Amino acid sequence: MHILLTNDDGVFAPGLRALRKELLRLGDVTVVAPAMEQSGVGHSITLLEPLVVTQVEDVDGTRLGWKVEGSPADSVKLGICELMSRPPDLIVSGINSGSNAGINVLYSGTVAAAIEGAFFKITSIAVSLELSEHFDFPHAARHASRVIEKILANKPANGSLFNVNLPAHSRGEPRGIRVVPMGLGRYGEGFERRQDPRGRTYYWMTYNPPYHFEGAETDVTSLSEGYITVTPLHFDLTRYDAIPDVRRWKWDDGPSSQ
Amino acid sequence: MHILLTNDDGVFAPGLRALRKELLRLGDVTVVAPAMEQSGVGHSITLLEPLVVTQVEDVDGTRLGWKVEGSPADSVKLGICELMSRPPDLIVSGINSGSNAGINVLYSGTVAAAIEGAFFKITSIAVSLELSEHFDFPHAARHASRVIEKILANKPANGSLFNVNLPAHSRGEPRGIRVVPMGLGRYGEGFERRQDPRGRTYYWMTYNPPYHFEGAETDVTSLSEGYITVTPLHFDLTRYDAIPDVRRWKWDDGPSSQ
Repeated sequence: MHILLTNDDGVFAPGLRALRKELLRLGDVTVVAPAMEQSGVGHSITLLEPLVVTQVEDVDGTRLGWKVEGSPADSVKLGICELMSRPPDLIVSGINSGSNAGINVLYSGTVAAAIEGAFFKITSIAVSLELSEHFDFPHAARHASRVIEKILANKPANGSLFNVNLPAHSRGEPRGIRVVPMGLGRYGEGFERRQDPRGRTYYWMTYNPPYHFEGAETDVTSLSEGYITVTPLHFDLTRYDAIPDVRRWKWDDGPSSQ
Repeated sequence: MHILLTNDDGVFAPGLRALRKELLRLGDVTVVAPAMEQSGVGHSITLLEPLVVTQVEDVDGTRLGWKVEGSPADSVKLGICELMSRPPDLIVSGINSGSNAGINVLYSGTVAAAIEGAFFKITSIAVSLELSEHFDFPHAARHASRVIEKILANKPANGSLFNVNLPAHSRGEPRGIRVVPMGLGRYGEGFERRQDPRGRTYYWMTYNPPYHFEGAETDVTSLSEGYITVTPLHFDLTRYDAIPDVRRWKWDDGPSSQ
Protein backbone atom coordinates (compact mmCIF):
# COMPACT_ATOMS: atom_id res chain seq x y z
CA MET A 1 0.00 0.00 0.00
CA HIS A 2 1.23 3.46 -0.90
CA ILE A 3 0.23 6.27 1.47
CA LEU A 4 0.41 10.02 0.85
CA LEU A 5 0.89 11.73 4.21
CA THR A 6 0.24 15.44 4.60
CA ASN A 7 -0.82 17.97 7.26
CA ASP A 8 -1.34 21.67 7.84
CA ASP A 9 1.38 22.17 10.45
CA GLY A 10 4.32 21.87 8.05
CA VAL A 11 6.45 19.07 6.72
CA PHE A 12 8.65 18.77 9.81
CA ALA A 13 5.86 18.96 12.41
CA PRO A 14 6.13 16.34 15.17
CA GLY A 15 2.54 15.15 14.65
CA LEU A 16 3.29 14.19 11.06
CA ARG A 17 6.60 12.56 11.94
CA ALA A 18 5.08 10.43 14.68
CA LEU A 19 2.22 9.30 12.44
CA ARG A 20 4.64 8.53 9.60
CA LYS A 21 6.56 6.16 11.85
CA GLU A 22 3.38 4.19 12.60
CA LEU A 23 2.12 4.24 9.02
CA LEU A 24 5.36 2.71 7.75
CA ARG A 25 4.07 -0.55 9.27
CA LEU A 26 1.17 -0.41 6.79
CA GLY A 27 3.05 0.43 3.60
CA ASP A 28 5.19 2.99 1.79
CA VAL A 29 4.71 6.53 3.01
CA THR A 30 5.40 9.59 0.88
CA VAL A 31 5.20 12.92 2.67
CA VAL A 32 3.90 15.87 0.63
CA ALA A 33 3.16 18.70 3.01
CA PRO A 34 3.25 22.47 3.34
CA ALA A 35 6.64 24.05 4.00
CA MET A 36 5.17 26.13 6.81
CA GLU A 37 2.32 26.04 9.31
CA GLN A 38 -1.02 26.70 7.63
CA SER A 39 -3.47 26.69 10.54
CA GLY A 40 -6.92 27.97 9.69
CA VAL A 41 -6.30 27.99 5.95
CA GLY A 42 -9.41 25.90 5.28
CA HIS A 43 -9.68 24.51 1.80
CA SER A 44 -7.51 27.15 0.18
CA ILE A 45 -5.67 26.48 -3.05
CA THR A 46 -2.99 28.57 -4.69
CA LEU A 47 -4.13 29.95 -8.03
CA LEU A 48 -2.26 33.23 -8.37
CA GLU A 49 1.23 32.26 -7.22
CA PRO A 50 3.65 29.54 -8.25
CA LEU A 51 4.08 26.55 -5.96
CA VAL A 52 7.74 25.99 -5.12
CA VAL A 53 8.40 22.32 -4.37
CA THR A 54 11.54 20.95 -2.69
CA GLN A 55 12.52 17.37 -1.90
CA VAL A 56 13.13 16.82 1.79
CA GLU A 57 15.12 14.23 3.67
CA ASP A 58 14.76 12.98 7.20
CA VAL A 59 17.43 13.69 9.80
CA ASP A 60 19.09 10.36 8.96
CA GLY A 61 19.31 11.24 5.25
CA THR A 62 16.50 8.93 4.11
CA ARG A 63 14.01 10.37 1.68
CA LEU A 64 10.93 11.83 3.34
CA GLY A 65 9.12 13.38 0.38
CA TRP A 66 8.40 16.95 -0.64
CA LYS A 67 7.61 20.25 0.95
CA VAL A 68 5.29 22.55 -0.93
CA GLU A 69 5.18 26.30 -0.45
CA GLY A 70 1.41 26.23 -0.50
CA SER A 71 -1.62 24.88 1.33
CA PRO A 72 -2.49 21.34 2.44
CA ALA A 73 -4.91 21.00 -0.50
CA ASP A 74 -2.17 22.19 -2.90
CA SER A 75 0.12 19.52 -1.45
CA VAL A 76 -2.37 16.72 -2.05
CA LYS A 77 -3.16 17.89 -5.58
CA LEU A 78 0.54 18.17 -6.47
CA GLY A 79 1.36 14.88 -4.78
CA ILE A 80 -1.22 12.98 -6.80
CA CYS A 81 -0.83 14.82 -10.13
CA GLU A 82 2.90 15.47 -10.28
CA LEU A 83 5.13 14.18 -7.51
CA MET A 84 4.23 10.55 -6.82
CA SER A 85 5.09 7.91 -9.38
CA ARG A 86 1.56 6.45 -9.09
CA PRO A 87 -1.58 7.64 -7.28
CA PRO A 88 -1.61 6.70 -3.60
CA ASP A 89 -3.99 4.06 -2.22
CA LEU A 90 -4.64 6.13 0.89
CA ILE A 91 -4.27 9.74 1.95
CA VAL A 92 -3.69 10.57 5.61
CA SER A 93 -3.61 14.12 6.92
CA GLY A 94 -2.22 14.86 10.38
CA ILE A 95 -1.71 14.48 13.21
CA ASN A 96 -2.90 18.03 13.64
CA SER A 97 -1.95 19.80 16.87
CA GLY A 98 -5.48 20.73 17.95
CA SER A 99 -8.84 19.08 17.36
CA ASN A 100 -10.87 19.59 14.18
CA ALA A 101 -14.40 18.94 15.40
CA GLY A 102 -17.74 20.68 14.97
CA ILE A 103 -17.91 23.57 12.53
CA ASN A 104 -14.15 23.97 12.87
CA VAL A 105 -14.06 21.13 10.33
CA LEU A 106 -14.85 23.80 7.73
CA TYR A 107 -11.86 25.95 8.75
CA SER A 108 -9.47 23.05 8.89
CA GLY A 109 -6.59 22.68 6.47
CA THR A 110 -6.08 19.15 7.83
CA VAL A 111 -9.59 18.09 6.83
CA ALA A 112 -9.39 20.05 3.55
CA ALA A 113 -6.39 17.96 2.54
CA ALA A 114 -8.46 14.81 3.11
CA ILE A 115 -11.40 16.27 1.16
CA GLU A 116 -9.02 17.03 -1.69
CA GLY A 117 -7.98 13.38 -1.64
CA ALA A 118 -11.63 12.32 -1.81
CA PHE A 119 -12.08 14.56 -4.89
CA PHE A 120 -9.64 12.14 -6.55
CA LYS A 121 -11.70 9.15 -5.32
CA ILE A 122 -8.92 8.07 -2.96
CA THR A 123 -9.83 7.03 0.59
CA SER A 124 -8.72 9.84 2.87
CA ILE A 125 -8.46 10.18 6.63
CA ALA A 126 -7.84 13.36 8.66
CA VAL A 127 -6.40 12.93 12.15
CA SER A 128 -6.27 15.61 14.86
CA LEU A 129 -5.25 15.64 18.50
CA GLU A 130 -7.10 17.83 20.96
CA LEU A 131 -5.08 20.68 22.44
CA SER A 132 -3.44 20.18 25.81
CA GLU A 133 -0.43 21.56 27.58
CA HIS A 134 1.72 18.75 26.30
CA PHE A 135 1.31 16.77 23.08
CA ASP A 136 2.47 13.16 23.18
CA PHE A 137 2.41 12.54 19.46
CA PRO A 138 4.04 9.07 19.50
CA HIS A 139 1.27 7.91 21.86
CA ALA A 140 -1.44 9.60 19.77
CA ALA A 141 0.03 8.11 16.59
CA ARG A 142 -0.32 4.58 17.97
CA HIS A 143 -4.02 5.20 18.63
CA ALA A 144 -4.42 6.88 15.25
CA SER A 145 -2.79 4.10 13.27
CA ARG A 146 -4.98 1.53 15.02
CA VAL A 147 -8.09 3.50 14.03
CA ILE A 148 -6.78 3.76 10.46
CA GLU A 149 -6.12 0.00 10.35
CA LYS A 150 -9.68 -0.66 11.52
CA ILE A 151 -11.08 1.63 8.86
CA LEU A 152 -9.03 -0.11 6.16
CA ALA A 153 -9.95 -3.58 7.47
CA ASN A 154 -13.56 -2.74 6.62
CA LYS A 155 -12.63 -2.00 3.02
CA PRO A 156 -14.44 1.33 2.59
CA ALA A 157 -15.35 2.34 -0.98
CA ASN A 158 -12.71 4.35 -2.84
CA GLY A 159 -12.97 8.00 -2.01
CA SER A 160 -14.39 7.40 1.47
CA LEU A 161 -13.59 10.25 3.81
CA PHE A 162 -13.13 10.10 7.58
CA ASN A 163 -12.42 12.68 10.23
CA VAL A 164 -10.71 11.25 13.31
CA ASN A 165 -10.18 13.23 16.52
CA LEU A 166 -8.14 12.05 19.50
CA PRO A 167 -8.88 13.41 23.00
CA ALA A 168 -6.25 15.45 24.84
CA HIS A 169 -3.79 13.51 26.99
CA SER A 170 -5.00 15.50 29.97
CA ARG A 171 -8.26 13.52 29.71
CA GLY A 172 -6.38 10.25 30.33
CA GLU A 173 -6.44 7.17 28.09
CA PRO A 174 -9.23 7.29 25.48
CA ARG A 175 -12.43 5.71 26.79
CA GLY A 176 -13.17 4.10 23.42
CA ILE A 177 -14.13 5.00 19.88
CA ARG A 178 -17.40 6.68 18.93
CA VAL A 179 -18.79 7.06 15.41
CA VAL A 180 -20.58 10.40 15.58
CA PRO A 181 -21.80 13.25 13.38
CA MET A 182 -20.01 16.59 13.42
CA GLY A 183 -21.38 19.17 15.83
CA LEU A 184 -23.19 22.10 14.24
CA GLY A 185 -23.11 24.59 17.10
CA ARG A 186 -21.18 27.81 16.87
CA TYR A 187 -18.14 28.15 19.09
CA GLY A 188 -17.93 31.02 21.52
CA GLU A 189 -15.63 33.09 19.34
CA GLY A 190 -15.00 36.72 19.95
CA PHE A 191 -12.46 39.42 19.32
CA GLU A 192 -10.11 41.47 21.40
CA ARG A 193 -9.86 45.04 20.14
CA ARG A 194 -6.54 46.88 20.34
CA GLN A 195 -4.82 49.97 18.96
CA ASP A 196 -1.44 49.84 17.30
CA PRO A 197 1.22 52.50 18.12
CA ARG A 198 0.02 54.52 15.13
CA GLY A 199 -3.59 54.51 16.33
CA ARG A 200 -4.91 51.91 13.89
CA THR A 201 -7.54 49.53 15.23
CA TYR A 202 -6.87 45.83 15.03
CA TYR A 203 -8.49 42.70 16.41
CA TRP A 204 -7.23 39.38 17.67
CA MET A 205 -9.60 36.49 17.28
CA THR A 206 -10.24 34.72 20.60
CA TYR A 207 -11.89 31.38 21.22
CA ASN A 208 -13.87 30.58 24.29
CA PRO A 209 -15.64 27.37 23.40
CA PRO A 210 -18.69 26.82 25.58
CA TYR A 211 -17.89 24.51 28.43
CA HIS A 212 -21.25 22.78 28.37
CA PHE A 213 -22.67 21.21 25.26
CA GLU A 214 -26.33 20.57 24.83
CA GLY A 215 -28.26 18.29 22.54
CA ALA A 216 -27.16 15.31 20.51
CA GLU A 217 -23.97 13.32 20.75
CA THR A 218 -21.43 14.75 18.31
CA ASP A 219 -17.69 14.79 17.71
CA VAL A 220 -17.47 17.83 20.01
CA THR A 221 -19.37 16.24 22.91
CA SER A 222 -17.74 12.81 22.58
CA LEU A 223 -14.24 14.28 22.42
CA SER A 224 -14.93 16.30 25.57
CA GLU A 225 -15.97 13.05 27.25
CA GLY A 226 -12.62 11.46 26.38
CA TYR A 227 -13.60 9.34 23.36
CA ILE A 228 -11.78 9.01 20.06
CA THR A 229 -14.26 10.19 17.43
CA VAL A 230 -14.69 8.91 13.89
CA THR A 231 -16.94 10.93 11.58
CA PRO A 232 -17.63 9.79 8.01
CA LEU A 233 -17.71 12.95 5.86
CA HIS A 234 -18.75 13.91 2.36
CA PHE A 235 -18.11 17.09 0.38
CA ASP A 236 -21.55 17.59 -1.17
CA LEU A 237 -22.84 20.82 0.34
CA THR A 238 -26.19 20.60 -1.48
CA ARG A 239 -29.13 20.78 0.89
CA TYR A 240 -31.15 18.20 -1.03
CA ASP A 241 -34.11 18.31 1.35
CA ALA A 242 -34.66 21.98 0.44
CA ILE A 243 -34.54 21.52 -3.34
CA PRO A 244 -38.18 20.44 -3.95
CA ASP A 245 -39.49 23.40 -1.92
CA VAL A 246 -37.17 25.93 -3.50
CA ARG A 247 -38.08 24.62 -6.96
CA ARG A 248 -41.73 25.37 -6.22
CA TRP A 249 -40.96 29.02 -5.53
CA LYS A 250 -42.13 31.43 -8.20
CA TRP A 251 -39.02 31.93 -10.31
CA ASP A 252 -40.35 32.14 -13.83
CA ASP A 253 -41.09 35.86 -14.09
CA GLY A 254 -37.39 36.12 -13.38
CA PRO A 255 -34.41 37.45 -15.23
CA SER A 256 -35.04 35.22 -18.21
CA SER A 257 -38.09 37.20 -19.19
CA GLN A 258 -36.49 40.62 -18.69
CA MET B 1 -33.57 45.44 6.42
CA HIS B 2 -29.87 45.62 7.22
CA ILE B 3 -27.54 43.80 4.83
CA LEU B 4 -23.90 42.91 5.38
CA LEU B 5 -22.19 42.82 1.98
CA THR B 6 -18.84 41.11 1.56
CA ASN B 7 -16.80 39.33 -1.12
CA ASP B 8 -13.41 37.74 -1.75
CA ASP B 9 -12.20 40.15 -4.43
CA GLY B 10 -11.57 43.10 -2.08
CA VAL B 11 -13.62 45.98 -0.74
CA PHE B 12 -13.34 48.11 -3.88
CA ALA B 13 -14.01 45.35 -6.41
CA PRO B 14 -16.50 46.34 -9.14
CA GLY B 15 -18.66 43.26 -8.53
CA LEU B 16 -19.30 44.30 -4.94
CA ARG B 17 -19.91 47.93 -5.86
CA ALA B 18 -22.45 47.05 -8.54
CA LEU B 19 -24.32 44.69 -6.22
CA ARG B 20 -24.30 47.27 -3.42
CA LYS B 21 -26.05 49.75 -5.67
CA GLU B 22 -28.88 47.26 -6.32
CA LEU B 23 -29.11 46.09 -2.71
CA LEU B 24 -29.60 49.66 -1.49
CA ARG B 25 -33.13 49.35 -2.94
CA LEU B 26 -33.78 46.56 -0.40
CA GLY B 27 -32.36 48.17 2.74
CA ASP B 28 -29.24 49.51 4.45
CA VAL B 29 -26.03 47.99 3.20
CA THR B 30 -22.84 47.81 5.26
CA VAL B 31 -19.75 46.62 3.42
CA VAL B 32 -17.27 44.55 5.44
CA ALA B 33 -14.84 42.97 3.03
CA PRO B 34 -11.20 41.96 2.64
CA ALA B 35 -8.73 44.75 1.88
CA MET B 36 -7.24 42.70 -0.93
CA GLU B 37 -8.17 39.96 -3.37
CA GLN B 38 -8.48 36.59 -1.63
CA SER B 39 -9.27 34.21 -4.48
CA GLY B 40 -9.01 30.55 -3.59
CA VAL B 41 -8.76 31.19 0.14
CA GLY B 42 -11.66 28.86 0.90
CA HIS B 43 -12.99 29.03 4.41
CA SER B 44 -9.79 30.37 5.94
CA ILE B 45 -9.83 32.37 9.15
CA THR B 46 -7.01 34.34 10.69
CA LEU B 47 -5.92 32.89 14.02
CA LEU B 48 -2.25 33.75 14.26
CA GLU B 49 -2.19 37.34 13.06
CA PRO B 50 -4.07 40.45 14.10
CA LEU B 51 -6.85 41.72 11.86
CA VAL B 52 -6.36 45.36 10.96
CA VAL B 53 -9.69 47.05 10.23
CA THR B 54 -10.13 50.43 8.53
CA GLN B 55 -13.29 52.39 7.77
CA VAL B 56 -13.71 53.08 4.08
CA GLU B 57 -15.65 55.73 2.21
CA ASP B 58 -17.03 55.69 -1.26
CA VAL B 59 -15.65 58.01 -3.95
CA ASP B 60 -18.34 60.57 -3.07
CA GLY B 61 -17.35 60.60 0.62
CA THR B 62 -20.34 58.57 1.84
CA ARG B 63 -19.62 55.80 4.30
CA LEU B 64 -19.15 52.42 2.67
CA GLY B 65 -18.15 50.26 5.64
CA TRP B 66 -14.92 48.56 6.62
CA LYS B 67 -12.01 46.82 4.99
CA VAL B 68 -10.45 43.95 6.87
CA GLU B 69 -6.89 42.75 6.33
CA GLY B 70 -8.07 39.18 6.46
CA SER B 71 -10.27 36.63 4.71
CA PRO B 72 -13.94 36.83 3.68
CA ALA B 73 -14.90 34.65 6.67
CA ASP B 74 -12.92 36.96 9.00
CA SER B 75 -14.84 39.91 7.55
CA VAL B 76 -18.23 38.34 8.24
CA LYS B 77 -17.27 37.31 11.78
CA LEU B 78 -15.90 40.77 12.58
CA GLY B 79 -18.85 42.51 10.93
CA ILE B 80 -21.36 40.61 13.03
CA CYS B 81 -19.43 40.50 16.32
CA GLU B 82 -17.72 43.88 16.38
CA LEU B 83 -18.36 46.33 13.59
CA MET B 84 -22.10 46.52 12.96
CA SER B 85 -24.33 48.14 15.56
CA ARG B 86 -26.76 45.20 15.34
CA PRO B 87 -26.57 41.82 13.59
CA PRO B 88 -27.56 42.00 9.92
CA ASP B 89 -30.79 40.47 8.64
CA LEU B 90 -29.08 39.21 5.50
CA ILE B 91 -25.54 38.49 4.37
CA VAL B 92 -24.66 38.76 0.70
CA SER B 93 -21.26 37.77 -0.68
CA GLY B 94 -20.25 38.85 -4.18
CA ILE B 95 -20.51 39.40 -6.99
CA ASN B 96 -17.45 37.22 -7.46
CA SER B 97 -15.59 37.57 -10.73
CA GLY B 98 -15.74 33.93 -11.76
CA SER B 99 -18.28 31.18 -11.09
CA ASN B 100 -18.29 29.15 -7.88
CA ALA B 101 -19.96 25.95 -9.01
CA GLY B 102 -19.28 22.24 -8.54
CA ILE B 103 -16.51 21.27 -6.15
CA ASN B 104 -15.04 24.76 -6.56
CA VAL B 105 -17.67 25.70 -3.98
CA LEU B 106 -15.29 24.22 -1.40
CA TYR B 107 -12.39 26.41 -2.52
CA SER B 108 -14.47 29.54 -2.65
CA GLY B 109 -13.93 32.45 -0.29
CA THR B 110 -17.19 33.93 -1.61
CA VAL B 111 -19.20 30.90 -0.52
CA ALA B 112 -17.21 30.56 2.72
CA ALA B 113 -18.32 34.07 3.72
CA ALA B 114 -21.93 33.01 3.23
CA ILE B 115 -21.35 29.79 5.21
CA GLU B 116 -19.88 31.89 8.01
CA GLY B 117 -23.07 33.95 8.00
CA ALA B 118 -25.14 30.77 8.25
CA PHE B 119 -23.07 29.73 11.29
CA PHE B 120 -24.64 32.79 12.95
CA LYS B 121 -28.12 31.66 11.81
CA ILE B 122 -28.40 34.61 9.41
CA THR B 123 -29.73 33.97 5.89
CA SER B 124 -26.76 34.20 3.55
CA ILE B 125 -26.44 34.29 -0.23
CA ALA B 126 -23.27 33.93 -2.31
CA VAL B 127 -23.33 35.38 -5.84
CA SER B 128 -20.79 34.69 -8.58
CA LEU B 129 -20.54 35.62 -12.24
CA GLU B 130 -19.04 33.16 -14.70
CA LEU B 131 -15.76 34.24 -16.25
CA SER B 132 -15.84 35.91 -19.62
CA GLU B 133 -13.68 38.37 -21.52
CA HIS B 134 -15.72 41.25 -20.22
CA PHE B 135 -17.67 41.47 -16.97
CA ASP B 136 -20.78 43.63 -17.04
CA PHE B 137 -21.31 43.81 -13.30
CA PRO B 138 -24.15 46.37 -13.31
CA HIS B 139 -26.11 44.05 -15.59
CA ALA B 140 -25.25 41.00 -13.48
CA ALA B 141 -26.17 42.88 -10.30
CA ARG B 142 -29.68 43.55 -11.63
CA HIS B 143 -30.17 39.82 -12.22
CA ALA B 144 -28.61 38.99 -8.86
CA SER B 145 -30.76 41.39 -6.87
CA ARG B 146 -33.88 40.03 -8.54
CA VAL B 147 -32.88 36.48 -7.50
CA ILE B 148 -32.18 37.70 -3.98
CA GLU B 149 -35.58 39.42 -3.82
CA LYS B 150 -37.28 36.20 -4.91
CA ILE B 151 -35.43 34.23 -2.25
CA LEU B 152 -36.45 36.74 0.44
CA ALA B 153 -40.05 36.84 -0.79
CA ASN B 154 -40.29 33.16 0.11
CA LYS B 155 -39.23 33.88 3.68
CA PRO B 156 -36.56 31.19 4.08
CA ALA B 157 -35.78 30.10 7.66
CA ASN B 158 -33.06 32.07 9.43
CA GLY B 159 -29.65 30.74 8.54
CA SER B 160 -30.71 29.50 5.10
CA LEU B 161 -27.80 29.39 2.70
CA PHE B 162 -27.90 29.82 -1.08
CA ASN B 163 -25.27 29.72 -3.78
CA VAL B 164 -26.21 31.74 -6.87
CA ASN B 165 -24.23 31.62 -10.13
CA LEU B 166 -24.84 33.86 -13.13
CA PRO B 167 -23.83 32.71 -16.61
CA ALA B 168 -21.15 34.61 -18.56
CA HIS B 169 -22.33 37.50 -20.71
CA SER B 170 -20.85 35.73 -23.71
CA ARG B 171 -23.70 33.18 -23.36
CA GLY B 172 -26.29 35.91 -23.95
CA GLU B 173 -29.19 36.81 -21.65
CA PRO B 174 -29.84 34.13 -19.00
CA ARG B 175 -32.32 31.51 -20.21
CA GLY B 176 -33.98 31.33 -16.80
CA ILE B 177 -33.34 30.19 -13.26
CA ARG B 178 -32.65 26.59 -12.28
CA VAL B 179 -32.62 25.21 -8.74
CA VAL B 180 -29.96 22.50 -8.94
CA PRO B 181 -27.53 20.54 -6.75
CA MET B 182 -23.82 21.29 -6.87
CA GLY B 183 -21.79 19.18 -9.31
CA LEU B 184 -19.48 16.65 -7.72
CA GLY B 185 -17.13 15.94 -10.63
CA ARG B 186 -13.47 16.85 -10.47
CA TYR B 187 -12.32 19.62 -12.76
CA GLY B 188 -9.57 18.95 -15.25
CA GLU B 189 -6.87 20.57 -13.16
CA GLY B 190 -3.22 20.10 -13.81
CA PHE B 191 0.11 21.75 -13.26
CA GLU B 192 2.72 23.36 -15.44
CA ARG B 193 6.23 22.57 -14.22
CA ARG B 194 8.95 25.23 -14.53
CA GLN B 195 12.44 25.99 -13.25
CA ASP B 196 13.36 29.29 -11.64
CA PRO B 197 16.65 31.03 -12.56
CA ARG B 198 18.28 29.34 -9.57
CA GLY B 199 17.19 25.88 -10.69
CA ARG B 200 14.36 25.41 -8.19
CA THR B 201 11.29 23.57 -9.44
CA TYR B 202 7.95 25.29 -9.20
CA TYR B 203 4.46 24.62 -10.51
CA TRP B 204 1.63 26.77 -11.73
CA MET B 205 -1.82 25.36 -11.26
CA THR B 206 -3.76 25.22 -14.53
CA TYR B 207 -7.44 24.62 -15.07
CA ASN B 208 -8.86 22.93 -18.09
CA PRO B 209 -12.43 22.20 -17.13
CA PRO B 210 -13.89 19.40 -19.21
CA TYR B 211 -15.92 20.75 -22.09
CA HIS B 212 -18.58 18.07 -21.92
CA PHE B 213 -20.44 17.24 -18.77
CA GLU B 214 -22.13 13.92 -18.29
CA GLY B 215 -24.79 12.78 -15.89
CA ALA B 216 -27.26 14.73 -13.81
CA GLU B 217 -28.25 18.36 -14.08
CA THR B 218 -26.08 20.39 -11.71
CA ASP B 219 -24.95 23.97 -11.18
CA VAL B 220 -22.03 23.26 -13.52
CA THR B 221 -24.16 21.87 -16.37
CA SER B 222 -26.95 24.43 -16.01
CA LEU B 223 -24.54 27.34 -15.95
CA SER B 224 -22.87 26.06 -19.11
CA GLU B 225 -26.32 25.99 -20.73
CA GLY B 226 -26.86 29.67 -19.90
CA TYR B 227 -29.09 29.38 -16.82
CA ILE B 228 -28.81 31.27 -13.57
CA THR B 229 -28.34 28.60 -10.91
CA VAL B 230 -29.62 28.61 -7.34
CA THR B 231 -28.30 25.90 -5.01
CA PRO B 232 -29.51 25.61 -1.41
CA LEU B 233 -26.48 24.65 0.68
CA HIS B 234 -25.77 23.44 4.20
CA PHE B 235 -22.52 23.15 6.12
CA ASP B 236 -23.00 19.74 7.71
CA LEU B 237 -20.31 17.54 6.18
CA THR B 238 -21.45 14.43 8.09
CA ARG B 239 -22.19 11.53 5.78
CA TYR B 240 -25.21 10.38 7.77
CA ASP B 241 -26.00 7.48 5.44
CA ALA B 242 -22.66 5.91 6.32
CA ILE B 243 -22.96 6.22 10.09
CA PRO B 244 -25.05 3.06 10.80
CA ASP B 245 -22.64 0.93 8.77
CA VAL B 246 -19.51 2.42 10.26
CA ARG B 247 -20.97 1.98 13.75
CA ARG B 248 -21.32 -1.76 13.05
CA TRP B 249 -17.61 -2.10 12.30
CA LYS B 250 -15.61 -3.88 14.96
CA TRP B 251 -14.15 -1.01 17.00
CA ASP B 252 -14.25 -2.27 20.55
CA ASP B 253 -10.93 -4.07 20.78
CA GLY B 254 -9.57 -0.65 19.98
CA PRO B 255 -7.40 1.86 21.73
CA SER B 256 -9.70 1.99 24.75
CA SER B 257 -8.71 -1.50 25.75
CA GLN B 258 -5.01 -1.02 25.16
